[in-house]
Amino acid sequence: MSADLAIGIDIGGTKVAGGVIDVGGQVLVRARRDTPHRSKSPDVVENTIVEVVDELFAAVGRERVEAVGIGAAGFVAADRRTVVFAPHLSWRDEPLQENLQRRIRVPITVDNDANAAAWAEWKFGAAQGESHVMIVNLGTGIGGGIVTDGRLQRGRYGIAGEFGHMQVVPNGLRCECGNRGCWEQYASGNALVREARGIIAANSPVAANLLASVGGDPADLTGPLITAAAQAGDQTSIELLAELGNWLGVGIANLAAAFDPGTFVVGGGVSAAGRLLLDPARESFRRQLTGRGYRPEARIVAAQLGNEAGLIGAADLARLERSGEPS
Amino acid sequence: MSADLAIGIDIGGTKVAGGVIDVGGQVLVRARRDTPHRSKSPDVVENTIVEVVDELFAAVGRERVEAVGIGAAGFVAADRRTVVFAPHLSWRDEPLQENLQRRIRVPITVDNDANAAAWAEWKFGAAQGESHVMIVNLGTGIGGGIVTDGRLQRGRYGIAGEFGHMQVVPNGLRCECGNRGCWEQYASGNALVREARGIIAANSPVAANLLASVGGDPADLTGPLITAAAQAGDQTSIELLAELGNWLGVGIANLAAAFDPGTFVVGGGVSAAGRLLLDPARESFRRQLTGRGYRPEARIVAAQLGNEAGLIGAADLARLERSGEPS
Repeated sequence: MSADLAIGIDIGGTKVAGGVIDVGGQVLVRARRDTPHRSKSPDVVENTIVEVVDELFAAVGRERVEAVGIGAAGFVAADRRTVVFAPHLSWRDEPLQENLQRRIRVPITVDNDANAAAWAEWKFGAAQGESHVMIVNLGTGIGGGIVTDGRLQRGRYGIAGEFGHMQVVPNGLRCECGNRGCWEQYASGNALVREARGIIAANSPVAANLLASVGGDPADLTGPLITAAAQAGDQTSIELLAELGNWLGVGIANLAAAFDPGTFVVGGGVSAAGRLLLDPARESFRRQLTGRGYRPEARIVAAQLGNEAGLIGAADLARLERSGEPS
Repeated sequence: MSADLAIGIDIGGTKVAGGVIDVGGQVLVRARRDTPHRSKSPDVVENTIVEVVDELFAAVGRERVEAVGIGAAGFVAADRRTVVFAPHLSWRDEPLQENLQRRIRVPITVDNDANAAAWAEWKFGAAQGESHVMIVNLGTGIGGGIVTDGRLQRGRYGIAGEFGHMQVVPNGLRCECGNRGCWEQYASGNALVREARGIIAANSPVAANLLASVGGDPADLTGPLITAAAQAGDQTSIELLAELGNWLGVGIANLAAAFDPGTFVVGGGVSAAGRLLLDPARESFRRQLTGRGYRPEARIVAAQLGNEAGLIGAADLARLERSGEPS
């Protein structure tokens, strides 16, 4: 049987998720391992990746897999081998491809996770047929990716798409990247949880539902819990998502000023909030877009591939790299 | 004689400048008309353009001109015919190409002035050979342009590159575009003059040199006068340019986070300040760039084509459009 499949791996802060993907972007088999909660060390993550890949090899047969694509939440060099900087993983100049290639005997390519997700949403998801796409992935931070005329825009050194580290507030909140006022400090899963804990810490009665949802311990609060509370009608949670959506629209208007895409795709865990997030984002975008009313305006749409966009895109990008096709 | 030349026109707030350009980007003949200081009406500007073009036709012979390119300080639609919005010219949905084509019997193309300048600096100027270029043109406002792999990035609707209208200060200074906190309110020629007048209005003794340079009337203050004072050693003017450079670096770091270019070209009238502007900008950029120290950093260089970049680029883009070559 010929090699007609690819494996995609998505490295998160607390898990490694993998899938076997066919050329149509379908996920045929899935595997997943949690990584120890506080361990962001490359060794632990690499061991976990190898375990996940081996499980997927066993499921479909190694000979059917032509390439393995890794989506990493960090700045990946233009050679698509090295993670040069990863604020949320504490990695520096990590030779991820080389370390893994010794242990996985199928060609490996590394991409930024949001670039991979952007590629997947353009090729198989919410932005099919769009000539100018930008993705904004709201997870722990904000990941971003740009696809123009069917090509992923990686920049001169491979690090394009780090929208989350554009400054939106001078002298603003400190970011994991070391700077202040980065967009992701105002419009990400971390920002949502931080704001909710802030309301609880202020002993506000409006936080009663949220506090009850975690049995009184704010440390247990998570983005999905806040989203669930909002969807159940908790007004405070609805307002928190609207505030986040407001900042999302501001940043999207900035990106539209610079790049004028036809479609913004909003993905990542926080996007599960759906219209509770996207409606305020669209309103804010319409108030903020320069020249509004005198220009065509980009659509803001929800991602379609959910939390599998990263691994689907990583797999497809690795397959294209292997076969010499453009991406 | 075959048509081997193109005319480029640059529309500014108070003048129309034109030139006849050869295929090597050389300006062979120049013409220039002032427009009435407060008149930004399309009629007046269009009449002036026709006069300038006719003067250039007369100089080289109309039969040698294969195309006319107009660089306009506004949002130009993707059809390269219509100026949909121009904050500094007060134009709305202006059918510039159609109006001019009736009066100028050589094919006309309209481009955004900063896009035209970006093209010229990439093809003939400071960014030759660079795969990923962004230009930041500091004039009345901030114009911008992106050239990637030898193609001008116009965006989905033609309006990419409006870097000056990215918000850098929430609830900040009001902009001509109608928004608040736009980058160009902090890093443009207008910003420089406004800040200088602010120091004078505060009756500060540190403004004595500046005030003397305009005979005591702050209304006569201009960007070039402030730059000249700084170059003559006036400390206040040096500090004003450094403040502007600081904001320039902040915005450039934001653009680098999103697009990761290899070279930023700083052009426009204010860039005549040279190192008094660019050194503070480079310092600020290095403090602000996310992941700094762990990634290759873009160069920040001065434009080489001065205030003729726009007309050189507009002419070359019109010629390429006419001949069906990519741009």
